Amino acid sequence: MHDLIRELYPLCRSITGDGVRRTLEIVSRELPLEVHEVPTGTQVLDWVVPKEWNVREAWIRGPTGETVVDFQDSNLHLVGYSQPVHARMSLAELQPHLYSLPEQPDWIPYRNSFYRDAWGFCLSHRKLESLVAGEYEVRIDSTLSDGSLTYAEAVLRGSSDREVLLSCHVCHPSLCNDNLSGISLLTLLARYLGQLSLRYSYRILFVPVTIGAITWLARNENRLSKIDHGLVVTLVGDSGRSTYKRSRRGDAPIDRILAHVLKHRGEHQVVDFSPYGYDERQFCSPGFDLPVGCLMRTPHGQYPEYHTSADDLGFVKPAALADSLEKVVAAIDVLENDARYLNLYPKAEPQLGRRGIYRALADRGSDGGREMALLWVLNLSDGAHSLLDIAERSGAPFQVIVDAASVLVDHALLKRVEAGDRP
Amino acid sequence: MHDLIRELYPLCRSITGDGVRRTLEIVSRELPLEVHEVPTGTQVLDWVVPKEWNVREAWIRGPTGETVVDFQDSNLHLVGYSQPVHARMSLAELQPHLYSLPEQPDWIPYRNSFYRDAWGFCLSHRKLESLVAGEYEVRIDSTLSDGSLTYAEAVLRGSSDREVLLSCHVCHPSLCNDNLSGISLLTLLARYLGQLSLRYSYRILFVPVTIGAITWLARNENRLSKIDHGLVVTLVGDSGRSTYKRSRRGDAPIDRILAHVLKHRGEHQVVDFSPYGYDERQFCSPGFDLPVGCLMRTPHGQYPEYHTSADDLGFVKPAALADSLEKVVAAIDVLENDARYLNLYPKAEPQLGRRGIYRALADRGSDGGREMALLWVLNLSDGAHSLLDIAERSGAPFQVIVDAASVLVDHALLKRVEAGDRP
Amino acid sequence: MHDLIRELYPLCRSITGDGVRRTLEIVSRELPLEVHEVPTGTQVLDWVVPKEWNVREAWIRGPTGETVVDFQDSNLHLVGYSQPVHARMSLAELQPHLYSLPEQPDWIPYRNSFYRDAWGFCLSHRKLESLVAGEYEVRIDSTLSDGSLTYAEAVLRGSSDREVLLSCHVCHPSLCNDNLSGISLLTLLARYLGQLSLRYSYRILFVPVTIGAITWLARNENRLSKIDHGLVVTLVGDSGRSTYKRSRRGDAPIDRILAHVLKHRGEHQVVDFSPYGYDERQFCSPGFDLPVGCLMRTPHGQYPEYHTSADDLGFVKPAALADSLEKVVAAIDVLENDARYLNLYPKAEPQLGRRGIYRALADRGSDGGREMALLWVLNLSDGAHSLLDIAERSGAPFQVIVDAASVLVDHALLKRVEAGDRP
Repeated sequence: MHDLIRELYPLCRSITGDGVRRTLEIVSRELPLEVHEVPTGTQVLDWVVPKEWNVREAWIRGPTGETVVDFQDSNLHLVGYSQPVHARMSLAELQPHLYSLPEQPDWIPYRNSFYRDAWGFCLSHRKLESLVAGEYEVRIDSTLSDGSLTYAEAVLRGSSDREVLLSCHVCHPSLCNDNLSGISLLTLLARYLGQLSLRYSYRILFVPVTIGAITWLARNENRLSKIDHGLVVTLVGDSGRSTYKRSRRGDAPIDRILAHVLKHRGEHQVVDFSPYGYDERQFCSPGFDLPVGCLMRTPHGQYPEYHTSADDLGFVKPAALADSLEKVVAAIDVLENDARYLNLYPKAEPQLGRRGIYRALADRGSDGGREMALLWVLNLSDGAHSLLDIAERSGAPFQVIVDAASVLVDHALLKRVEAGDRP
Repeated sequence: MHDLIRELYPLCRSITGDGVRRTLEIVSRELPLEVHEVPTGTQVLDWVVPKEWNVREAWIRGPTGETVVDFQDSNLHLVGYSQPVHARMSLAELQPHLYSLPEQPDWIPYRNSFYRDAWGFCLSHRKLESLVAGEYEVRIDSTLSDGSLTYAEAVLRGSSDREVLLSCHVCHPSLCNDNLSGISLLTLLARYLGQLSLRYSYRILFVPVTIGAITWLARNENRLSKIDHGLVVTLVGDSGRSTYKRSRRGDAPIDRILAHVLKHRGEHQVVDFSPYGYDERQFCSPGFDLPVGCLMRTPHGQYPEYHTSADDLGFVKPAALADSLEKVVAAIDVLENDARYLNLYPKAEPQLGRRGIYRALADRGSDGGREMALLWVLNLSDGAHSLLDIAERSGAPFQVIVDAASVLVDHALLKRVEAGDRP
Repeated sequence: MHDLIRELYPLCRSITGDGVRRTLEIVSRELPLEVHEVPTGTQVLDWVVPKEWNVREAWIRGPTGETVVDFQDSNLHLVGYSQPVHARMSLAELQPHLYSLPEQPDWIPYRNSFYRDAWGFCLSHRKLESLVAGEYEVRIDSTLSDGSLTYAEAVLRGSSDREVLLSCHVCHPSLCNDNLSGISLLTLLARYLGQLSLRYSYRILFVPVTIGAITWLARNENRLSKIDHGLVVTLVGDSGRSTYKRSRRGDAPIDRILAHVLKHRGEHQVVDFSPYGYDERQFCSPGFDLPVGCLMRTPHGQYPEYHTSADDLGFVKPAALADSLEKVVAAIDVLENDARYLNLYPKAEPQLGRRGIYRALADRGSDGGREMALLWVLNLSDGAHSLLDIAERSGAPFQVIVDAASVLVDHALLKRVEAGDRP
């Protein structure tokens, strides 16, 4: 995953433009993507697809002609969606267009001017303070013109046409955790899922935040009823603990599943839905109310590197990425394997010892966890409890419960409930 | 409020008699009162209106003829509802009729002998201990005769005939917190509400505790179905934290509202209903089960000054009274303004920036609270959630949510649900 | 109770055999028992009644002919259900058949080989380590042959044929807490209940664990619908705090009752059902799902003496046994007396003072608990709340609430709801 992040890092992404296109091209080497271009001016729900923004060059030259800020050094230097400018001005006139972080004097902030006519540069506070009075030349060779908004989706077909929606945003320039970590996690996940025989179909979205999700929703309203579960994946590479933010519903299966998966995988937090954050805002708007949560590590705004040049290749840890991926895989494992079963010997306990799957009780040793799982599955498999219910009530990890159910099915003690067995 | 308390303080109130009449006369200078007189002997539910009690004078003279206790000094000196007495007796004979507080030797206790034939005097323990052996003259020039029980109500008509019941008791003599604080708070509240255009009608009761509330209930059974919310107001002037005692129902709107209002206003406690306390006992009896809670500061019996001469003008703090009034006003603000709304752009988020009510997100500054309130109102205004629901879920104060809804209505993003929009 | 335990202690009980028969004979001196013999080979649900096991003698003689382990010294020395053996072997050959507790070198462990063909001896680790190389003579003069499984039940008839099931296991040899404590508690309880006029019928089972409970269930399926409440009683004599393990349902009346009873009787714990433990496993299997909980003190496996020779006469404390019995009696008191009542004066409070059951309020003294109970019963006796509901909500012990209801019934303020008045 980290290699993919390294390749995507230098590109100048925004909510439209060639940076997004190039990003999706690179991802499409790893998995087949359906790329969509939606023209400027298209009405998408309450919004309109904006003009496309591209940049050739952008710099500021100082009184002595030296370049003091250059977009080529870091695409964070240019405020996103800056209008074209070529002008000479005093430092005093330039100052209102310059943004820095006094409390982090070596970092470049990340800023945008979406849906406004404006321009600006971001630079380290140390650099800003070094500027001397005099005449400056400012050059932004950008275009803001009719074009299109670009997004992509990958679909992995399962035996059912019921869908799981996985989504990440692809509109941030040289920031790693936000959100190259999400892009790379979903790319690898898709490759992994592609090797499996799946029950659900998986739809993976690579969209510019807000306008991209809204565009996708506008164009796919008629398929939303197929979505049973969803997850926005973002900020999954920092070394903080995992955070799951519940869907608006709060008690959707995806909410129970992520809470279960995280509970068995170390320190974490589960927080309630709120209508601010990433594209769960759009998926969970009241007119759609999709069961979509959000998996992160440290939430946006709660680490100092957020939206600065310090969210770089070193900030994202391969071990954290791998841990996040493992958790998403575990959640999908629950989605794929949860079902209700019927104990075929529901009156008292069946004699497990005689069947050779259960050593005589007097002999109980260290494998208590697996044996307890057998007893839990038998006790709760009354057709009303799913395996996830049993995992939650017993306190055992889902995988242990699935394994126990499998052993019991093999010994003809348990039978899967066929109708309506989605969790 | 404190001026009104000062004027009412010297009057000798009890469950009947001229002290209550004079009290209601003074209150009626501030707001129009309907005063009721209910004759002695009237059956009111399981009770009977008692004889009326009035006192001209009451004193004890010592062996040398000096007055040692005089009702004129403090009406607490005389046990309430004392029978007339004029007799000479030894100190030993007098002792069983004398009440003091050994643990608070300078305070006079407050005692009654309602519904019993008895008499007695209350005095400081220091005074009691100074009494010498000898013959004492006891004089209680009281009348206990057919008359009437006096109570009053004020009604403020709103656009609806659905009612909010507010009640205080008016039967305690020279005690300030219990309950001149409640009388004065509801008097000022009524004046304030009189200036507003109201949705609910407000019925404010000034009644003797227990028998007064029972009398009112007996005479108003046919109107109880109009009461949607109610609050008993008492002990609202001491410097302790606020206490809200839930209605018997425990989850009535008034219970949620007071919990919400107090949560955003500093240290406080919310306690469950119990069938002891003030007139909420009667309103919440199982045959009525009205949604009536009780707002206090320190509950009865939990401060040493309770039912003693130390519950005086200095014990009630103007700042505490004002704080209590502000909380009742805030609760009424919720009652008046809570409603359900419909987001008219429920699919994804509407573009707030374009409408000028929302600065572009990249620009988010310190006003996050108000902007979050806009997002919460939009997200939860699906016709099922009221503004109070939204305030509770978002953690924002109700007023911030109301303001956000108002801005959104002004920009045609939100519409009030008209039918059945009471909380 | 302790005397009965002392008499039962030396007997060699197992899941079948003469030790169980002799135990039930001794118990039947105290209360009439119906003893059942179920032949070897009988199919009971998924199980088959095993061969009957009896032991005449069992010992190991060392190289010099001295007896090193003898069943006569302690029946724990012989692994339960050991096959007959008479052989000579080296210490190395003998070792796999010897069991000890290295961490408790003076205690003999308790082990079984139910449903397997095996044999073995248990001995203290100190003894095991003292064995020298050489030839040993092993003699187990046991029989494993067609016979029967023995269990007993005692029935105490109440006015209703609805039943309360009480169960203990009778299959452990010289162990006191596990489960002579349970046997003796239920024996004394039955004698106590025999003196009362009962509402419920009580069925008390004395059964070998697992196979005994399964046998009873198999033979009584048609009467299970009569069981309204049940309790397994085991490990009730150690000095630890009481533990109540909820039924599988988790919110059965028996669960609420035991939680209430324990709450008012000192330190304790209430734990959720799990499908491991004693015969609640069988009663709470999904095909039966009976409302049966389990009362213990320290749970199995949570004290070092568990299943060792240290679970002896000194480990079981008379005071702990008496405390456990008192708790079961208190729970039965709730079962017998819980009912719903109707306040006959539900509008406001009835005037208690006039009826002589309530001193005038001004006079309230130290008996607040009993007076509060009167007010709680009046306030909540609306036909929907049972006395247990009232006890839970008020925080008062059930007995105080029952007493209050009784006083109110005597004064014609309260009436029992006759139909469907089981809790």
